[in-house]
Amino acid sequence: MQVEVISSVNEASQARFHHKTAIVVDVLRAGSTIVTALAAGAEAIVPVETVMEAKAAQMAGDLLGGERFCRKISGFDLGNSPDEYEASAVRARRIILTTTNGTRALQKSARADYVLTAALMNAAACARAALSLRRDVVILCAGYNDAFAAEDGFGAGLLLERMTQAGMNALELDDFALAMLGFYRSRSAYALETLASGATGKRLLKLGLQRDIEACAEIDIYKDVPILQGEKLVLLTR
Amino acid sequence: MQVEVISSVNEASQARFHHKTAIVVDVLRAGSTIVTALAAGAEAIVPVETVMEAKAAQMAGDLLGGERFCRKISGFDLGNSPDEYEASAVRARRIILTTTNGTRALQKSARADYVLTAALMNAAACARAALSLRRDVVILCAGYNDAFAAEDGFGAGLLLERMTQAGMNALELDDFALAMLGFYRSRSAYALETLASGATGKRLLKLGLQRDIEACAEIDIYKDVPILQGEKLVLLTR
Repeated sequence: MQVEVISSVNEASQARFHHKTAIVVDVLRAGSTIVTALAAGAEAIVPVETVMEAKAAQMAGDLLGGERFCRKISGFDLGNSPDEYEASAVRARRIILTTTNGTRALQKSARADYVLTAALMNAAACARAALSLRRDVVILCAGYNDAFAAEDGFGAGLLLERMTQAGMNALELDDFALAMLGFYRSRSAYALETLASGATGKRLLKLGLQRDIEACAEIDIYKDVPILQGEKLVLLTR
Repeated sequence: MQVEVISSVNEASQARFHHKTAIVVDVLRAGSTIVTALAAGAEAIVPVETVMEAKAAQMAGDLLGGERFCRKISGFDLGNSPDEYEASAVRARRIILTTTNGTRALQKSARADYVLTAALMNAAACARAALSLRRDVVILCAGYNDAFAAEDGFGAGLLLERMTQAGMNALELDDFALAMLGFYRSRSAYALETLASGATGKRLLKLGLQRDIEACAEIDIYKDVPILQGEKLVLLTR
Protein backbone atom coordinates (compact mmCIF):
# COMPACT_ATOMS: atom_id res chain seq x y z
CA MET A 1 0.00 0.00 0.00
CA GLN A 2 1.36 3.38 -1.02
CA VAL A 3 0.98 6.30 1.33
CA GLU A 4 1.82 9.86 0.39
CA VAL A 5 1.51 13.07 2.36
CA ILE A 6 0.70 16.45 0.79
CA SER A 7 2.08 19.42 2.73
CA SER A 8 -0.80 21.86 2.24
CA VAL A 9 -3.95 22.49 0.21
CA ASN A 10 -1.91 24.59 -2.22
CA GLU A 11 0.17 21.55 -3.13
CA ALA A 12 -2.83 19.33 -3.77
CA SER A 13 -4.01 18.66 -7.31
CA GLN A 14 -7.26 16.75 -7.64
CA ALA A 15 -5.62 14.15 -9.90
CA ARG A 16 -3.53 12.87 -7.01
CA PHE A 17 -6.66 11.58 -5.25
CA HIS A 18 -8.07 9.30 -7.96
CA HIS A 19 -8.85 5.78 -6.69
CA LYS A 20 -7.36 6.63 -3.29
CA THR A 21 -8.49 7.04 0.28
CA ALA A 22 -7.92 10.67 1.27
CA ILE A 23 -7.37 11.60 4.91
CA VAL A 24 -7.69 15.33 5.53
CA VAL A 25 -5.74 16.33 8.65
CA ASP A 26 -6.75 19.60 10.29
CA VAL A 27 -5.65 19.41 13.90
CA LEU A 28 -6.17 23.06 14.88
CA ARG A 29 -9.09 22.98 14.85
CA ALA A 30 -11.64 21.81 12.29
CA GLY A 31 -10.65 18.14 12.27
CA SER A 32 -10.83 18.05 16.06
CA THR A 33 -14.15 19.88 16.15
CA ILE A 34 -15.70 17.60 13.51
CA VAL A 35 -14.88 14.34 15.30
CA THR A 36 -15.90 15.82 18.65
CA ALA A 37 -19.28 16.88 17.28
CA LEU A 38 -20.01 13.55 15.57
CA ALA A 39 -18.85 11.58 18.62
CA ALA A 40 -21.22 13.72 20.70
CA GLY A 41 -24.14 12.64 18.52
CA ALA A 42 -24.41 15.34 15.86
CA GLU A 43 -26.29 13.94 12.86
CA ALA A 44 -23.89 15.31 10.25
CA ILE A 45 -21.45 18.12 9.49
CA VAL A 46 -21.91 20.05 6.26
CA PRO A 47 -18.65 21.82 5.39
CA VAL A 48 -19.04 24.99 3.32
CA GLU A 49 -16.58 27.62 2.20
CA THR A 50 -18.29 30.96 2.88
CA VAL A 51 -20.50 32.50 5.55
CA MET A 52 -23.11 33.19 2.88
CA GLU A 53 -23.14 29.54 1.80
CA ALA A 54 -23.51 28.51 5.43
CA LYS A 55 -26.57 30.70 5.88
CA ALA A 56 -28.06 29.52 2.58
CA ALA A 57 -27.58 25.85 3.54
CA GLN A 58 -29.19 26.20 6.97
CA MET A 59 -32.51 24.42 7.37
CA ALA A 60 -34.80 24.34 10.39
CA GLY A 61 -32.97 22.80 13.33
CA ASP A 62 -29.50 23.18 11.82
CA LEU A 63 -26.73 24.85 13.77
CA LEU A 64 -24.21 27.23 12.22
CA GLY A 65 -20.60 26.79 13.29
CA GLY A 66 -17.21 28.05 12.25
CA GLU A 67 -14.56 30.69 12.50
CA ARG A 68 -12.85 33.51 10.68
CA PHE A 69 -9.40 34.52 11.89
CA CYS A 70 -9.81 31.98 14.71
CA ARG A 71 -12.91 33.79 16.02
CA LYS A 72 -16.58 32.73 16.13
CA ILE A 73 -18.59 34.29 13.30
CA SER A 74 -21.12 36.92 14.25
CA GLY A 75 -24.62 35.43 14.35
CA PHE A 76 -23.39 31.82 14.39
CA ASP A 77 -24.39 29.32 17.08
CA LEU A 78 -20.94 27.84 17.58
CA GLY A 79 -17.29 28.73 16.97
CA ASN A 80 -14.53 26.27 16.16
CA SER A 81 -13.59 25.12 19.68
CA PRO A 82 -14.09 21.38 20.21
CA ASP A 83 -15.36 22.07 23.75
CA GLU A 84 -18.41 23.88 22.38
CA TYR A 85 -19.57 20.78 20.53
CA GLU A 86 -20.80 18.80 23.51
CA ALA A 87 -23.78 16.47 23.38
CA SER A 88 -26.22 18.90 25.01
CA ALA A 89 -25.52 21.38 22.20
CA VAL A 90 -25.28 19.19 19.14
CA ARG A 91 -27.03 15.83 19.62
CA ALA A 92 -29.11 14.88 16.57
CA ARG A 93 -28.43 18.28 14.97
CA ARG A 94 -26.99 18.93 11.55
CA ILE A 95 -24.15 21.46 11.72
CA ILE A 96 -23.19 23.74 8.84
CA LEU A 97 -19.48 24.40 9.40
CA THR A 98 -17.34 26.98 7.67
CA THR A 99 -13.60 27.07 8.35
CA THR A 100 -10.70 28.69 6.58
CA ASN A 101 -8.69 25.73 5.25
CA GLY A 102 -10.68 22.62 6.08
CA THR A 103 -13.39 23.11 3.49
CA ARG A 104 -10.95 23.77 0.65
CA ALA A 105 -9.04 20.65 1.65
CA LEU A 106 -12.22 18.55 1.48
CA GLN A 107 -13.10 19.98 -1.93
CA LYS A 108 -9.63 19.22 -3.26
CA SER A 109 -9.86 15.61 -2.14
CA ALA A 110 -13.43 15.04 -3.30
CA ARG A 111 -12.36 12.82 -6.21
CA ALA A 112 -10.94 10.21 -3.87
CA ASP A 113 -12.91 6.98 -3.46
CA TYR A 114 -13.17 7.74 0.27
CA VAL A 115 -12.52 10.96 2.18
CA LEU A 116 -11.91 10.75 5.93
CA THR A 117 -11.12 13.58 8.32
CA ALA A 118 -8.54 13.11 11.04
CA ALA A 119 -7.17 14.82 14.10
CA LEU A 120 -4.88 13.61 16.87
CA MET A 121 -8.07 12.70 18.78
CA ASN A 122 -8.99 9.89 16.38
CA ALA A 123 -5.71 9.02 14.64
CA ALA A 124 -5.61 5.31 15.46
CA ALA A 125 -9.23 4.87 14.36
CA CYS A 126 -8.55 6.69 11.07
CA ALA A 127 -5.43 4.60 10.48
CA ARG A 128 -7.39 1.36 10.98
CA ALA A 129 -10.21 2.61 8.76
CA ALA A 130 -7.76 3.48 5.98
CA LEU A 131 -6.30 -0.02 6.27
CA SER A 132 -9.71 -1.64 5.94
CA LEU A 133 -10.71 0.47 2.92
CA ARG A 134 -7.94 -1.15 0.83
CA ARG A 135 -6.89 1.77 -1.31
CA ASP A 136 -3.62 3.65 -1.54
CA VAL A 137 -3.72 6.58 0.86
CA VAL A 138 -3.15 10.31 0.43
CA ILE A 139 -2.88 12.27 3.64
CA LEU A 140 -3.59 15.95 3.01
CA CYS A 141 -2.37 18.43 5.62
CA ALA A 142 -4.96 21.23 5.61
CA GLY A 143 -2.39 23.82 6.71
CA TYR A 144 -2.73 27.42 7.71
CA ASN A 145 -2.93 30.42 5.38
CA ASP A 146 -2.20 28.17 2.39
CA ALA A 147 1.07 26.98 3.92
CA PHE A 148 2.27 23.92 5.80
CA ALA A 149 1.20 23.84 9.47
CA ALA A 150 3.37 22.00 12.00
CA GLU A 151 0.38 20.49 13.83
CA ASP A 152 -0.97 18.91 10.65
CA GLY A 153 2.45 17.48 9.77
CA PHE A 154 2.65 16.06 13.29
CA GLY A 155 -0.83 14.60 12.81
CA ALA A 156 0.16 13.06 9.48
CA GLY A 157 3.18 11.47 11.16
CA LEU A 158 0.97 10.10 13.94
CA LEU A 159 -1.36 8.57 11.34
CA LEU A 160 1.63 6.91 9.65
CA GLU A 161 2.86 5.59 13.01
CA ARG A 162 -0.58 4.15 13.75
CA MET A 163 -0.85 2.61 10.28
CA THR A 164 2.51 0.92 10.84
CA GLN A 165 1.41 -0.30 14.26
CA ALA A 166 -1.84 -1.62 12.77
CA GLY A 167 0.21 -4.10 10.81
CA MET A 168 0.84 -2.29 7.56
CA ASN A 169 4.52 -3.04 7.46
CA ALA A 170 4.37 -3.06 3.71
CA LEU A 171 3.66 0.67 3.59
CA GLU A 172 5.50 2.44 0.81
CA LEU A 173 6.01 5.99 2.02
CA ASP A 174 6.81 8.89 -0.28
CA ASP A 175 9.55 11.34 0.70
CA PHE A 176 7.27 13.76 2.50
CA ALA A 177 5.66 10.92 4.44
CA LEU A 178 9.11 9.74 5.55
CA ALA A 179 9.84 13.23 6.81
CA MET A 180 6.53 13.58 8.67
CA LEU A 181 6.92 10.17 10.33
CA GLY A 182 10.37 11.27 11.52
CA PHE A 183 8.99 14.61 12.72
CA TYR A 184 6.26 12.86 14.70
CA ARG A 185 8.66 10.37 16.24
CA SER A 186 11.07 13.07 17.41
CA ARG A 187 8.21 14.97 19.08
CA SER A 188 5.79 12.20 20.07
CA ALA A 189 6.20 12.88 23.80
CA TYR A 190 5.51 16.59 23.25
CA ALA A 191 2.22 16.85 21.39
CA LEU A 192 1.01 19.89 23.32
CA GLU A 193 4.32 21.76 22.98
CA THR A 194 4.48 20.94 19.28
CA LEU A 195 0.97 22.25 18.66
CA ALA A 196 1.78 25.39 20.64
CA SER A 197 5.02 26.05 18.76
CA GLY A 198 3.55 26.39 15.25
CA ALA A 199 2.07 29.52 13.73
CA THR A 200 -1.55 28.42 14.30
CA GLY A 201 -0.83 27.53 17.91
CA LYS A 202 0.89 30.84 18.59
CA ARG A 203 -2.08 32.67 17.14
CA LEU A 204 -4.55 30.72 19.28
CA LEU A 205 -2.44 31.38 22.39
CA LYS A 206 -2.49 35.11 21.66
CA LEU A 207 -6.28 34.96 21.45
CA GLY A 208 -6.47 33.20 24.83
CA LEU A 209 -7.48 29.86 23.30
CA GLN A 210 -4.90 27.71 25.11
CA ARG A 211 -7.70 25.36 26.20
CA ASP A 212 -8.41 24.56 22.53
CA ILE A 213 -4.78 23.57 21.98
CA GLU A 214 -4.93 21.30 25.02
CA ALA A 215 -8.11 19.64 23.77
CA CYS A 216 -6.72 19.15 20.26
CA ALA A 217 -3.45 17.68 21.63
CA GLU A 218 -5.26 14.67 23.12
CA ILE A 219 -4.35 11.56 21.19
CA ASP A 220 -6.70 8.68 20.34
CA ILE A 221 -9.54 9.63 22.69
CA TYR A 222 -12.15 8.85 20.03
CA LYS A 223 -12.75 5.69 18.02
CA ASP A 224 -14.92 7.65 15.58
CA VAL A 225 -14.04 8.28 11.94
CA PRO A 226 -15.81 11.02 9.97
CA ILE A 227 -16.30 10.17 6.31
CA LEU A 228 -17.57 12.39 3.49
CA GLN A 229 -20.88 11.17 2.14
CA GLY A 230 -22.04 13.41 -0.68
CA GLU A 231 -21.95 16.92 0.77
CA LYS A 232 -21.82 15.95 4.42
CA LEU A 233 -19.55 14.28 6.94
CA VAL A 234 -21.04 11.42 8.93
CA LEU A 235 -19.56 8.67 11.08
CA LEU A 236 -18.10 5.70 9.27
CA THR A 237 -19.86 2.59 10.55
CA ARG A 238 -18.42 -0.76 9.71
CA MET B 1 17.02 35.66 13.51
CA GLN B 2 14.20 34.11 11.50
CA VAL B 3 14.81 30.89 9.64
CA GLU B 4 12.35 29.40 7.20
CA VAL B 5 12.57 26.28 5.06
CA ILE B 6 10.97 25.94 1.62
CA SER B 7 10.06 22.39 0.67
CA SER B 8 10.94 22.48 -3.04
CA VAL B 9 11.74 24.82 -5.91
CA ASN B 10 8.07 24.79 -6.88
CA GLU B 11 7.13 26.36 -3.57
CA ALA B 12 9.71 29.15 -3.82
CA SER B 13 8.67 32.64 -4.91
CA GLN B 14 11.50 35.08 -5.50
CA ALA B 15 9.93 37.61 -3.11
CA ARG B 16 10.63 35.35 -0.15
CA PHE B 17 14.39 35.83 -0.61
CA HIS B 18 14.61 39.64 -0.41
CA HIS B 19 17.20 40.83 2.11
CA LYS B 20 17.88 37.28 3.22
CA THR B 21 20.66 34.74 3.13
CA ALA B 22 19.52 31.82 0.97
CA ILE B 23 20.97 28.36 1.50
CA VAL B 24 20.20 25.99 -1.37
CA VAL B 25 20.31 22.38 -0.19
CA ASP B 26 20.83 19.72 -2.86
CA VAL B 27 22.28 16.68 -1.15
CA LEU B 28 21.89 14.16 -4.00
CA ARG B 29 24.00 15.30 -5.69
CA ALA B 30 24.71 18.81 -6.98
CA GLY B 31 25.33 20.43 -3.60
CA SER B 32 27.76 17.67 -2.69
CA THR B 33 29.50 17.82 -6.05
CA ILE B 34 29.87 21.61 -5.91
CA VAL B 35 31.53 21.71 -2.49
CA THR B 36 33.73 18.73 -3.38
CA ALA B 37 34.95 20.44 -6.57
CA LEU B 38 35.65 23.79 -4.91
CA ALA B 39 37.37 22.11 -1.95
CA ALA B 40 39.53 20.24 -4.48
CA GLY B 41 40.68 23.53 -5.95
CA ALA B 42 38.30 24.20 -8.84
CA GLU B 43 38.36 27.92 -9.65
CA ALA B 44 34.59 28.30 -9.91
CA ILE B 45 31.37 26.47 -10.76
CA VAL B 46 29.04 28.05 -13.31
CA PRO B 47 25.55 26.57 -12.90
CA VAL B 48 23.43 26.58 -16.07
CA GLU B 49 20.05 25.12 -16.88
CA THR B 50 20.46 23.42 -20.27
CA VAL B 51 23.07 21.39 -22.09
CA MET B 52 23.08 24.00 -24.86
CA GLU B 53 23.80 26.79 -22.38
CA ALA B 54 26.60 24.72 -20.92
CA LYS B 55 28.26 24.30 -24.29
CA ALA B 56 27.77 27.99 -25.12
CA ALA B 57 29.34 29.07 -21.81
CA GLN B 58 32.42 26.85 -22.19
CA MET B 59 35.69 28.73 -22.74
CA ALA B 60 39.16 27.30 -23.31
CA GLY B 61 40.17 25.21 -20.30
CA ASP B 62 36.65 24.90 -18.88
CA LEU B 63 35.23 21.50 -17.97
CA LEU B 64 31.64 20.49 -18.66
CA GLY B 65 29.87 18.62 -15.87
CA GLY B 66 26.38 17.49 -15.05
CA GLU B 67 23.66 14.92 -15.43
CA ARG B 68 20.34 14.15 -17.00
CA PHE B 69 18.22 11.43 -15.40
CA CYS B 70 21.15 10.82 -13.00
CA ARG B 71 23.50 9.96 -15.91
CA LYS B 72 26.54 11.80 -17.27
CA ILE B 73 25.71 13.83 -20.37
CA SER B 74 27.15 12.61 -23.66
CA GLY B 75 30.25 14.61 -24.61
CA PHE B 76 30.69 16.08 -21.11
CA ASP B 77 33.93 15.74 -19.14
CA LEU B 78 32.31 14.90 -15.83
CA GLY B 79 29.03 13.57 -14.45
CA ASN B 80 27.46 14.51 -11.13
CA SER B 81 29.31 12.10 -8.82
CA PRO B 82 31.36 13.90 -6.13
CA ASP B 83 34.13 11.29 -6.53
CA GLU B 84 34.83 12.47 -10.08
CA TYR B 85 35.68 15.96 -8.91
CA GLU B 86 39.08 15.20 -7.39
CA ALA B 87 41.97 17.64 -7.43
CA SER B 88 43.78 15.99 -10.34
CA ALA B 89 40.71 16.54 -12.51
CA VAL B 90 39.47 19.97 -11.46
CA ARG B 91 42.24 22.03 -9.83
CA ALA B 92 42.24 25.62 -11.15
CA ARG B 93 39.58 24.76 -13.73
CA ARG B 94 36.26 26.48 -14.21
CA ILE B 95 33.42 23.97 -14.37
CA ILE B 96 30.18 24.56 -16.25
CA LEU B 97 27.62 22.45 -14.38
CA THR B 98 24.11 21.59 -15.49
CA THR B 99 21.81 19.67 -13.13
CA THR B 100 18.08 19.11 -13.06
CA ASN B 101 16.95 20.99 -9.93
CA GLY B 102 20.01 22.75 -8.56
CA THR B 103 20.20 25.43 -11.21
CA ARG B 104 16.54 26.36 -10.96
CA ALA B 105 16.91 26.58 -7.19
CA LEU B 106 19.84 28.97 -7.56
CA GLN B 107 17.90 31.13 -10.02
CA LYS B 108 14.90 31.30 -7.70
CA SER B 109 17.04 32.46 -4.80
CA ALA B 110 19.12 34.94 -6.80
CA ARG B 111 17.43 37.97 -5.22
CA ALA B 112 18.75 37.09 -1.79
CA ASP B 113 21.60 39.21 -0.41
CA TYR B 114 23.73 36.06 -0.22
CA VAL B 115 23.23 32.65 -1.80
CA LEU B 116 25.13 29.69 -0.33
CA THR B 117 24.95 26.05 -1.40
CA ALA B 118 24.91 23.30 1.18
CA ALA B 119 25.14 19.55 1.47
CA LEU B 120 25.63 17.28 4.45
CA MET B 121 29.38 17.46 3.71
CA ASN B 122 29.61 21.14 4.69
CA ALA B 123 26.56 21.74 6.89
CA ALA B 124 28.33 23.09 9.97
CA ALA B 125 30.41 25.47 7.86
CA CYS B 126 27.29 26.75 6.06
CA ALA B 127 25.49 27.19 9.37
CA ARG B 128 28.37 29.27 10.78
CA ALA B 129 28.58 31.29 7.57
CA ALA B 130 24.85 32.06 7.70
CA LEU B 131 25.27 33.19 11.29
CA SER B 132 28.10 35.54 10.39
CA LEU B 133 26.22 37.06 7.44
CA ARG B 134 23.60 38.53 9.81
CA ARG B 135 20.49 38.20 7.70
CA ASP B 136 17.34 36.17 8.16
CA VAL B 137 17.79 32.81 6.49
CA VAL B 138 15.75 30.94 3.88
CA ILE B 139 16.77 27.33 3.36
CA LEU B 140 15.56 26.08 -0.01
CA CYS B 141 15.33 22.32 -0.51
CA ALA B 142 16.14 21.77 -4.19
CA GLY B 143 14.03 18.61 -4.34
CA TYR B 144 13.56 16.02 -7.02
CA ASN B 145 11.21 16.23 -10.00
CA ASP B 146 9.71 19.47 -8.62
CA ALA B 147 8.74 17.76 -5.36
CA PHE B 148 10.14 17.53 -1.85
CA ALA B 149 13.12 15.19 -1.51
CA ALA B 150 13.78 13.47 1.82
CA GLU B 151 17.55 13.96 1.63
CA ASP B 152 17.18 17.73 1.23
CA GLY B 153 14.74 17.93 4.15
CA PHE B 154 17.21 15.94 6.22
CA GLY B 155 19.95 18.35 5.13
CA ALA B 156 17.80 21.36 6.05
CA GLY B 157 17.24 19.84 9.50
CA LEU B 158 20.98 19.26 9.90
CA LEU B 159 21.65 22.92 9.02
CA LEU B 160 19.11 24.00 11.66
CA GLU B 161 20.73 21.72 14.23
CA ARG B 162 24.16 23.17 13.44
CA MET B 163 22.82 26.74 13.58
CA THR B 164 21.39 26.01 17.02
CA GLN B 165 24.68 24.46 18.13
CA ALA B 166 26.59 27.49 16.80
CA GLY B 167 24.88 29.58 19.42
CA MET B 168 21.81 30.83 17.61
CA ASN B 169 19.42 29.98 20.39
CA ALA B 170 17.25 32.88 19.38
CA LEU B 171 16.33 31.23 16.09
CA GLU B 172 12.70 31.72 15.15
CA LEU B 173 11.75 28.71 13.06
CA ASP B 174 8.74 28.61 10.78
CA ASP B 175 6.49 25.54 10.79
CA PHE B 176 8.30 23.71 8.03
CA ALA B 177 11.65 24.34 9.71
CA LEU B 178 10.28 22.88 12.96
CA ALA B 179 9.24 19.77 11.06
CA MET B 180 12.60 19.37 9.26
CA LEU B 181 14.55 19.81 12.50
CA GLY B 182 12.42 17.07 14.05
CA PHE B 183 12.89 14.85 11.00
CA TYR B 184 16.66 15.29 11.17
CA ARG B 185 16.79 14.57 14.90
CA SER B 186 14.80 11.36 14.57
CA ARG B 187 17.14 10.10 11.83
CA SER B 188 20.48 11.73 12.75
CA ALA B 189 22.17 8.39 13.40
CA TYR B 190 20.97 7.04 10.04
CA ALA B 191 22.11 9.52 7.40
CA LEU B 192 23.01 6.86 4.84
CA GLU B 193 19.79 4.90 5.32
CA THR B 194 17.73 8.10 5.11
CA LEU B 195 19.38 9.14 1.85
CA ALA B 196 18.86 5.65 0.45
CA SER B 197 15.16 5.54 1.41
CA GLY B 198 13.99 8.56 -0.58
CA ALA B 199 12.98 8.58 -4.24
CA THR B 200 16.31 10.04 -5.44
CA GLY B 201 18.29 7.52 -3.42
CA LYS B 202 16.26 4.61 -4.73
CA ARG B 203 16.84 5.78 -8.27
CA LEU B 204 20.60 6.12 -7.73
CA LEU B 205 20.71 2.63 -6.19
CA LYS B 206 18.96 1.21 -9.23
CA LEU B 207 21.58 2.82 -11.44
CA GLY B 208 24.39 1.27 -9.38
CA LEU B 209 25.41 4.59 -7.83
CA GLN B 210 25.45 3.45 -4.19
CA ARG B 211 28.95 4.89 -3.82
CA ASP B 212 27.54 8.37 -4.55
CA ILE B 213 24.99 8.00 -1.76
CA GLU B 214 27.74 6.96 0.63
CA ALA B 215 29.86 9.96 -0.34
CA CYS B 216 26.95 12.38 -0.01
CA ALA B 217 25.98 10.96 3.42
CA GLU B 218 29.25 12.08 5.00
CA ILE B 219 28.59 14.90 7.42
CA ASP B 220 30.81 17.96 7.98
CA ILE B 221 33.88 16.68 6.16
CA TYR B 222 34.44 20.08 4.50
CA LYS B 223 34.82 23.53 6.04
CA ASP B 224 34.19 25.12 2.64
CA VAL B 225 31.15 27.22 1.77
CA PRO B 226 30.22 27.88 -1.87
CA ILE B 227 28.70 31.31 -2.43
CA LEU B 228 27.08 32.71 -5.57
CA GLN B 229 29.09 35.61 -6.99
CA GLY B 230 27.41 36.95 -10.09
CA GLU B 231 26.93 33.92 -12.33
CA LYS B 232 29.37 31.62 -10.60
CA LEU B 233 29.88 29.79 -7.34
CA VAL B 234 33.17 30.35 -5.56
CA LEU B 235 34.42 29.66 -2.06
CA LEU B 236 33.37 32.11 0.62
CA THR B 237 36.56 33.45 2.21
CA ARG B 238 36.24 35.42 5.40
